[in-house]
Amino acid sequence: MALEDRVSELAAEIPPVDEAAVREARKRHLGLTKPPGSLGRLEELGARLAGMAGECPPPVSDNPAVLICAGDHGVLGRGVSPWPQAITAAMVGNFCNGGAAVNAIAKTVGARVSVLDVGVAGELGGHPLLRAAKVRRGTDDLSRGPAMSRDEAARAVMAGAGVAEELIESGGVDLLVVGDMGIGNTTPAACLISAFTGSLPTETTGRGTGIDDRTLELKVSVVEEALRVNGPDPGDPLGVLAAVGGLEHAASVGVILMGAVYGVPVVLDGVVSNSSALVAHALAPHSAGYLVAGHLSAEPGALVTLEYLELEPLLDMRMRLGEGTGGLLAVPLVRAATRTLAEMATLEELGFG
Amino acid sequence: MALEDRVSELAAEIPPVDEAAVREARKRHLGLTKPPGSLGRLEELGARLAGMAGECPPPVSDNPAVLICAGDHGVLGRGVSPWPQAITAAMVGNFCNGGAAVNAIAKTVGARVSVLDVGVAGELGGHPLLRAAKVRRGTDDLSRGPAMSRDEAARAVMAGAGVAEELIESGGVDLLVVGDMGIGNTTPAACLISAFTGSLPTETTGRGTGIDDRTLELKVSVVEEALRVNGPDPGDPLGVLAAVGGLEHAASVGVILMGAVYGVPVVLDGVVSNSSALVAHALAPHSAGYLVAGHLSAEPGALVTLEYLELEPLLDMRMRLGEGTGGLLAVPLVRAATRTLAEMATLEELGFG
Repeated sequence: MALEDRVSELAAEIPPVDEAAVREARKRHLGLTKPPGSLGRLEELGARLAGMAGECPPPVSDNPAVLICAGDHGVLGRGVSPWPQAITAAMVGNFCNGGAAVNAIAKTVGARVSVLDVGVAGELGGHPLLRAAKVRRGTDDLSRGPAMSRDEAARAVMAGAGVAEELIESGGVDLLVVGDMGIGNTTPAACLISAFTGSLPTETTGRGTGIDDRTLELKVSVVEEALRVNGPDPGDPLGVLAAVGGLEHAASVGVILMGAVYGVPVVLDGVVSNSSALVAHALAPHSAGYLVAGHLSAEPGALVTLEYLELEPLLDMRMRLGEGTGGLLAVPLVRAATRTLAEMATLEELGFG
Repeated sequence: MALEDRVSELAAEIPPVDEAAVREARKRHLGLTKPPGSLGRLEELGARLAGMAGECPPPVSDNPAVLICAGDHGVLGRGVSPWPQAITAAMVGNFCNGGAAVNAIAKTVGARVSVLDVGVAGELGGHPLLRAAKVRRGTDDLSRGPAMSRDEAARAVMAGAGVAEELIESGGVDLLVVGDMGIGNTTPAACLISAFTGSLPTETTGRGTGIDDRTLELKVSVVEEALRVNGPDPGDPLGVLAAVGGLEHAASVGVILMGAVYGVPVVLDGVVSNSSALVAHALAPHSAGYLVAGHLSAEPGALVTLEYLELEPLLDMRMRLGEGTGGLLAVPLVRAATRTLAEMATLEELGFG
């Protein structure tokens, strides 16, 4: 089977969330020892998690993982970021050695860290935390033509899906956080968000790592050029991904799709995973039902995307780092939403039923 | 020494936070392996925690506790809440038996639960989690005169302070979350907030457990009456607390003051602990430096208070339960803020210094 067909097949496997379990959770909340609705957004989150799991109460995660998909970007040659490409490989090493923000935050919330190389330009040594599935050494410059071929995009999607499946099947992972690393990767994110939502590049392009006004102006014009040159058709999601996406964006699409196939909640991080969620949604509309918007990134494309997908972010910490850091911070909220449903006494048990 | 003088003495012991440690943390963040500022509010939180601890990096909490101060309210007789007073004692039992929302969330974030009875009307059995320090069985109706005497208010403050000191000294607790339980206790909270901030009762009085429009109208008029009848003077904080406060509000003031004395961060929960923070601030302005606003309660007085104290809430989950639930959800954010400062590699170590 062609790789592209395997992506379509995976997307077709995703069932809608279980609405009966959602209703059961809402009803259950009314009888717990608290005023109705007083746990606010935690109650609706619990109901959504019940829908994903297909049971109420939904299981409490005791084995979350963050999967950081890494790749490089030909468009970096246009000067969209002041950071050198070598940072991508160096940061993958930093993840493996436990020295990055994602490691500190993963430790805080009890999540394991995995890194997937689908397209880092530099050479990477082997490491137990690192999965090697390099599709190619970085993409081509998407402002001059397609970033990669359809087959390469499909291969990166299936690499992400494969690692997610391995984490769930062999590792017992029950909650997935999607992280990303790739110098220059907010440029393809902006392209994807504009392509799928129809929002203008001025609305979807941000300062990434913190670029100045002049570089931001250049970055917007590069996104406009990429859309003009490639003319992405949102009716052909894999085509859009290949033309104006990135390898780590593609791998993240696979993580989202595979999580949804297993009914495992997928917590989104910042604008890169947000843009991947749009691709996954275009391939499989039901996939959005399995997503939790962990936080609102400071990148403007994040808000555009989450509003489009009708996902309300749990946190707003003005973070813009990626790696999965913002998504990980939402893990305790997900656990609290399930644990209150699972463990609270009822008013009836307390004698006030 | 009179109890009132002991409160003043405690308040006078609180030092200002260590501004040098704050500056050191901000500087340290600039050299860590991430774009400057990309951890957003987590960076400023880390700097504040360094100031509280007086060292950089500040210690990572591995022993947080929530202390739920409980009491009853004479003003309940005015019909400000549809819930019966017996719920307060029943919920204290529920906390001890592990069946409440606070238990589920404390378990999620690895915090221990303690309950302090400073004024529950009903009889409570003994329990290892329960500290008995009943000052009296509920307050008097604050809309007809003072809720309690100055001496009783001082005794409740010192009870909260005593348990906080015991948790820190004997229990090794390094992070305190202030919780509350008391049917009717958002009415004294609104009174305290109006008294200290000057905001109108219409701006500080909310629906509490979820009262209807008619009851809300009554509740606002009761708060107005309480302020008119007692004429609280914000220049006499203990007098305000005695006149229009509650016993659990007073105990929470003691928790806040004692946390600050030890340089232990105190995470506020909802509108009751927020109102107590105003009393603590009036007694000891430096105490606000040791506070973390865990979340923004749905009660309108919460926003009024946090803006007055210039504290930005970490979470906004539209919660309005109390018990410490919203404060506990912020514990992982506090830990992440310290752990990133303590454990991240520097750009120099990565070869990009």
